[in-house]
Amino acid sequence: MNKQQLIEQIKIKKSFLCIGLDPVKENLPPHLLKYDNPVLEFNKQIIDATKDLCVAYKPNTAFYECMGLVGWQTLMQTWEYIPKDVLTIADAKRGDIGNTSSMYAEAFFNQDKSGMSFDAVTVAPYMGHDSVGPFLNYKDKWVILLALTSNAGHSDFQLLESQNGKFYEEVIRTSASWGGSEQMMYVVGATRGAEFAAVRKLAPDHFLLVPGVGAQGGSLSEVCKYGLTPDCGLLVNAARSIIYAGKGEDFAEKAREEALKLQQEMQQILEAAQIK
Amino acid sequence: MNKQQLIEQIKIKKSFLCIGLDPVKENLPPHLLKYDNPVLEFNKQIIDATKDLCVAYKPNTAFYECMGLVGWQTLMQTWEYIPKDVLTIADAKRGDIGNTSSMYAEAFFNQDKSGMSFDAVTVAPYMGHDSVGPFLNYKDKWVILLALTSNAGHSDFQLLESQNGKFYEEVIRTSASWGGSEQMMYVVGATRGAEFAAVRKLAPDHFLLVPGVGAQGGSLSEVCKYGLTPDCGLLVNAARSIIYAGKGEDFAEKAREEALKLQQEMQQILEAAQIK
Repeated sequence: MNKQQLIEQIKIKKSFLCIGLDPVKENLPPHLLKYDNPVLEFNKQIIDATKDLCVAYKPNTAFYECMGLVGWQTLMQTWEYIPKDVLTIADAKRGDIGNTSSMYAEAFFNQDKSGMSFDAVTVAPYMGHDSVGPFLNYKDKWVILLALTSNAGHSDFQLLESQNGKFYEEVIRTSASWGGSEQMMYVVGATRGAEFAAVRKLAPDHFLLVPGVGAQGGSLSEVCKYGLTPDCGLLVNAARSIIYAGKGEDFAEKAREEALKLQQEMQQILEAAQIK
Repeated sequence: MNKQQLIEQIKIKKSFLCIGLDPVKENLPPHLLKYDNPVLEFNKQIIDATKDLCVAYKPNTAFYECMGLVGWQTLMQTWEYIPKDVLTIADAKRGDIGNTSSMYAEAFFNQDKSGMSFDAVTVAPYMGHDSVGPFLNYKDKWVILLALTSNAGHSDFQLLESQNGKFYEEVIRTSASWGGSEQMMYVVGATRGAEFAAVRKLAPDHFLLVPGVGAQGGSLSEVCKYGLTPDCGLLVNAARSIIYAGKGEDFAEKAREEALKLQQEMQQILEAAQIK
C-alpha cells in the first residue's frame, strides 16, 4: 500500500486508528479455548469487528514467536485474514547487517519465499543505513523506524545529547532521506506529546506510528495538536485497551465499542483540520 | 550455560570459536537438495564436523525466518541438534518494551512455551533497560547486547559523540551493570581492532562476541591483542568462511579444515596468554 492509498483509506474511514494484535493466550476470553487455535480465532473475531474502523493492524511478532511453531503459523494466518485495504504492520523491530536485513525483508515482504507480505515492518536504527536499506527495495512497502519510544527505557539512550540534538533526533535527521516520506515512517511514543513538535521539524511529511495511546496513558488530542499534517500523517496505535475491552463472549463487540470511540474522536479531529 | 562453564569449555577445546549457522538454500552443495530439508541436513553435517572445534554456534534468525514456517521449524531442529556443552546463541537482535521483550525471552529461552531454549540471544540496545531486563530473568542465560557492529552503517549512529564519549561507549557504560559479566556480553566488530581497547576500559570482564573475522576481513590477532582477558573473554564468530569453505560432497570436511585453522590459531593465542 503506498502513501496515497493510505491517505485515501484514512479519508474514507475517517480514522487513523491502528489496532495492535498482541494476544496472550492466558488473557483470552475463556470460551475461545475450545477452538483448535484460540489465538487465531480471537484475532479473526477482533478483525471482523473492527476492520471498518481502523486503517492498520499491527501484530507484534514477539506475541507469536513465544508460542513456537504454532505461533509463527498463527502470525501468517492472521496476516492472511486481514483485508487488503488495511495496512498490515509486522511490529518486529528487526535490523542487522545488510546481507541479513535482506533476509528479514524477505521474511516479512516476500510472500513467495516466506508466505507473508506485510505492507510495513518496524526496524531498529542502531546498525545504520545498510541495516535499513534492504527493506526499501520493495515497492509500496514501508520501513517504520524506531525514533522515540514510549517505554521507560527510552531515556537511557534516545534522549542522550549529541552535537546536533538528542540521539533520536539524529536518527530522524540522518534517516529521513533514506526512503523519504513515501516509504518511511517513524515510531514516536504518545506519552511524550511535547516532543512531537521537535519530530515534526525534522520530518514534516513523514507518517508517524504512535503507540502509547490507551493502556500506556498517552493523549490523542495532545498527539494531534503537534503531530497532525495536511495528509493526517499519523497512525495511532491502541492494543490492550481495544482487544481486551471485554473478557466474555461479547469481547469482539466490546472491542468494537472501544475502537468506535477512538474512531469518532479521530473523525472530529480530521473534520476540524479539514482533512477529508 | 554459565560463565564458569563457558570458560571451562574454552580451556578444554582450546578454542573460542563461534560458528555462524547462516545457511542460504541457494548456496548449499547441490547434492543436499535431495533431502526433505536441505538446510537442516546442511546444519547437521556442519555441526557434526565442527562440534569439537568450537565453543558456540550462532544461527542468525533472519536466515530461518525468510523461509517461513519451515524455516522456524528448521531453527528449532537446529537448536535441538546442537550438543548441550556448546553455547547456543540465537542471533535475533530483538528488543521491545518490557512487556514485549518478556515474550521474546520466552521465545528463545523458555522451551516449555516455545520449544527452544538457547543459552544466549543478541539484543539491540536502542529501547533501553526495560527492553533488556526481561532476558536477564533467566538463570544461566545471556544477553549479548549490540555495541559496535562490523557493518558499514555502524558509523551512522554508534560513533556519534555524546557528552561522555561515543554512543556505543554510552551503551556499554550504561548497560554494564544491568546483568554484569555473568549474564551479559557485547557484540564488538572485529573490523575495528583499535576500538577494542576503548571497549575493554568500560567492560574489562565481559565476554565480547566478535563477528567480522573471516569473510568480513577482521584480524584475529588484532582482536586478541586488545580484547583478550585472563578468562579469554572473547567469542570470535566466523560463518561464511567456514560453512561455505566447500561446495561439493566434502563440504563438511572443508568446513572442518577451516574451523581447525582458526582453532589452532586460537590455541596458540591461549597458550601464549597462559589461559589453560
